[in-house]
Amino acid sequence: MTGIDDLPIREELKGKSPYGAPQLDVPVRLNTNENPYPLPEPLVQRIAERVTEAARNLNRYPDRDAVELRTELARYLTRTAGHEVRVENVWAANGSNEVIQQLLQTFGGPGRTAIGFEPSYSMHGLISRGTGTGWISGPRNDDFTIDVEAATKAIAEHAPDVTFITSPNNPTGTAVEAETVLALYEAAQAAKPSLVVVDEAYIEFSHGASLLPLIEGRPNLVVSRTMSKAFGAAGLRLGYLAAHPAVVDAVQLVRLPYHLSAITQATALAALEHTDTLLAYVEQLKQERDRLVDGLRALGYDVTPSDANFVQFGRFEDAHAVWQQILDRGVLVRDNGVPGWLRVTAGTPEENDAFLDAVKDLKKEQEHSA
Amino acid sequence: MTGIDDLPIREELKGKSPYGAPQLDVPVRLNTNENPYPLPEPLVQRIAERVTEAARNLNRYPDRDAVELRTELARYLTRTAGHEVRVENVWAANGSNEVIQQLLQTFGGPGRTAIGFEPSYSMHGLISRGTGTGWISGPRNDDFTIDVEAATKAIAEHAPDVTFITSPNNPTGTAVEAETVLALYEAAQAAKPSLVVVDEAYIEFSHGASLLPLIEGRPNLVVSRTMSKAFGAAGLRLGYLAAHPAVVDAVQLVRLPYHLSAITQATALAALEHTDTLLAYVEQLKQERDRLVDGLRALGYDVTPSDANFVQFGRFEDAHAVWQQILDRGVLVRDNGVPGWLRVTAGTPEENDAFLDAVKDLKKEQEHSA
Repeated sequence: MTGIDDLPIREELKGKSPYGAPQLDVPVRLNTNENPYPLPEPLVQRIAERVTEAARNLNRYPDRDAVELRTELARYLTRTAGHEVRVENVWAANGSNEVIQQLLQTFGGPGRTAIGFEPSYSMHGLISRGTGTGWISGPRNDDFTIDVEAATKAIAEHAPDVTFITSPNNPTGTAVEAETVLALYEAAQAAKPSLVVVDEAYIEFSHGASLLPLIEGRPNLVVSRTMSKAFGAAGLRLGYLAAHPAVVDAVQLVRLPYHLSAITQATALAALEHTDTLLAYVEQLKQERDRLVDGLRALGYDVTPSDANFVQFGRFEDAHAVWQQILDRGVLVRDNGVPGWLRVTAGTPEENDAFLDAVKDLKKEQEHSA
Repeated sequence: MTGIDDLPIREELKGKSPYGAPQLDVPVRLNTNENPYPLPEPLVQRIAERVTEAARNLNRYPDRDAVELRTELARYLTRTAGHEVRVENVWAANGSNEVIQQLLQTFGGPGRTAIGFEPSYSMHGLISRGTGTGWISGPRNDDFTIDVEAATKAIAEHAPDVTFITSPNNPTGTAVEAETVLALYEAAQAAKPSLVVVDEAYIEFSHGASLLPLIEGRPNLVVSRTMSKAFGAAGLRLGYLAAHPAVVDAVQLVRLPYHLSAITQATALAALEHTDTLLAYVEQLKQERDRLVDGLRALGYDVTPSDANFVQFGRFEDAHAVWQQILDRGVLVRDNGVPGWLRVTAGTPEENDAFLDAVKDLKKEQEHSA
C-alpha cells in the first residue's frame, strides 16, 4: 500500500504528522481556546440575511480587496485600540494563520529566517517551515515573560528577517509590555531592516491595552488579529492585520487572488455589526478566566498570570499523565508539550466548575495516595 | 512616503504588481470566465438554511478534515466522471489556487522545479514562484495543443518535480487527450518520481470526458477541480482534488489547520445538493460557447477549438488595441498577453449577442477603413 513517504514529497516532510489538537468526544472540551458562547440568535439571523444577499451574486468572483470588510475592521480597531486605523492599514485573510503565511511569503521564505520566543504559538514555527523560512527558537524567562536581554542578544546574533512576539502569549497567557516590543523592534532594525509581527490573537481578553498604536511611524511593525476568539467565530476563519499601508500593498504580491470568499466577507461583516454584544461576552470570559486562576491557586497549583481566555497551570512531574487523569474525569484540556504545564480554556461557568471539580478531585486523590 | 520597495521584502518581489484582471465598470463583462447565471433561488434559500445552522456553532472550529463535504464531492465525481472516487481520494481548499499551493508546498518548494506548457493558467507559474519552486515554461504547438515530443523532451531534460497539464487549457480552451497525459506522466516518472497535476477547472464544459479515471494505479497523478465555474460559485472559493489517498494525507502536512471555514463547507454542501440544476446551466453555456465559436468564424476570425466556457479568437496584429476597441463598444473581454489573441467568456445569450454585435461592428469599420 502506497503511503505518504512513498510519494516524491519534500525530504523535510517525511515522517511528519499533521498539526492539530486531538478532538475527543468528551462532555467538557476546554482544549482549543474556543469561545464557549454561541453567537446570539439575532446575529445568526443577520448572517443568514447577509449571506443570502451574497449568495445571489455567488457566480461572480468576490471583492478581491475586501474593501467593505477592511473598512469595518479598521473602524473596530480605531474604536477599541485607541489609535486611528484606516482601510489602507488593514488586510484580511482566511484566519490569522493565512495572514502569517502571507507575511512569511513576502518577508521570509527560502534563504531567510524567523525567530519566536518559545514556548509560543507553534504555528509561527510551522508556517515558517511551510514557507521555507528558517526557524530560530528564542528564549524566555522561567516565568514565561520575554527575557529582553537574551532576546535582543539572539536577534543581534541571528539578524532574523521576521520576529514574532505573541501578546498575550499562547499557551502561557503572558502579556508583553510595550517597552519589550520596542526594545525587540529596535534590536531587530539595528541588526538589519526586518519585519516584527505582534500576534494579538487574544488581546481582547487582556488586562492591558493593545500594542496597535506602536505601528505609527514604524513601517516594519505589524499587529495580527483574529475574529476566532473575541468574536466567537473560530468556525469563520477570519484573521487580519494592521500595519503601514506599504505592508498591505506588499502582501498583495503573494496573496492568492480572490483568497477571501464572498460568504466569508458577508459573515464577518454581520459579526462586526454585533461587536458590542460579543465584547460583553468577552467581559464575562475575563471574569471566568480570573476565577479559574484563583480557583487553581486556591488548590495549590502554580498558575501563570493570564491575559488570555485560557490559563496555564502546573507544575507536574508528568503533565501528560495529569492531562489523562483530568480527561478521565470528563474534561479535555490541552497538553502543549510545555514540560510540567497544562493549559485550560475558560469555558462557561458550568464548564469551569466541572474543570475545577475535576482538578480538586485529582488533588484529593493525590493527597490520599501520598 | 514609504512604499513596497522600501520594506524588507524578498528581492524577487521588488517592482512586481499583484495578479488580477482589471475590473472595469462596463455593461457586459466577459473577462473572467465567470458563470453568467446566478444561483437559482431555491439554492440561495438552502444556502441560507445550511449557513444558519453552521452559524449557530460558529464559536467552534470547523471540521478540520471537511469529511462531509469531501464525501459529497466524491459522490459528485463518481457520478459524473465515470470512476469510483471515495472520501479518502478527495481534498478541498479555498479555491483550486489553494489546492495548487498546498501541492507545491508538499511536492515542489525551494530547490525543486515545476513545468507548465504555456500559454496556460498563469497562476501555476505565479504560485510556483510564491512557494519558492523554480518555474520552467514548456512549449506548445502553434495550434495550442501540447507538442508531445517537445514536452516529453523538456521533461526529460529538466526532470521537474511537478508537471502541470491544464485540460481544457486556459486561456486557449484546448482539451488534452488521455494519451498525451499518459505520455507526459510516463516521461515525468522516467526522469524521476514526481507529481503530475491535471488541472480540470473547466472540464464540465468539455465535449470529452474527465481524465479522472487515470488516477487509478498512478499515485503521482492528481486531478484538480473547482466549484467556481460549473457550479456557478466563483464567489465561494472552493477548489478540490482527486488522487491516491496518500496524496490527500500528504497535503495535510502543509495545509493550514482549519483552513476551510464552516460557512464555506455549509455553502458548498448546499450547492452540491443542487447539482442537476447547475449542470443544466452548463449545457446551456456549452451551446452558447459553440454559438460564439461559429459566430466568430462566420465573421472571419480565427478561433481556437474550445472545450471550456470561453473562446480564444484572433489573430490580431495588436490584440490590446482590439481589446480596447471592443471595450469602447461596451464589452469587456480579456487580453491574457497571448500575442495576437483575445479571450471571451461565454455569457448569457444577450451578453453573447452584445459581444458578437461589437466584433461585427468592429469588422465592418475595419473593412471600410481598409
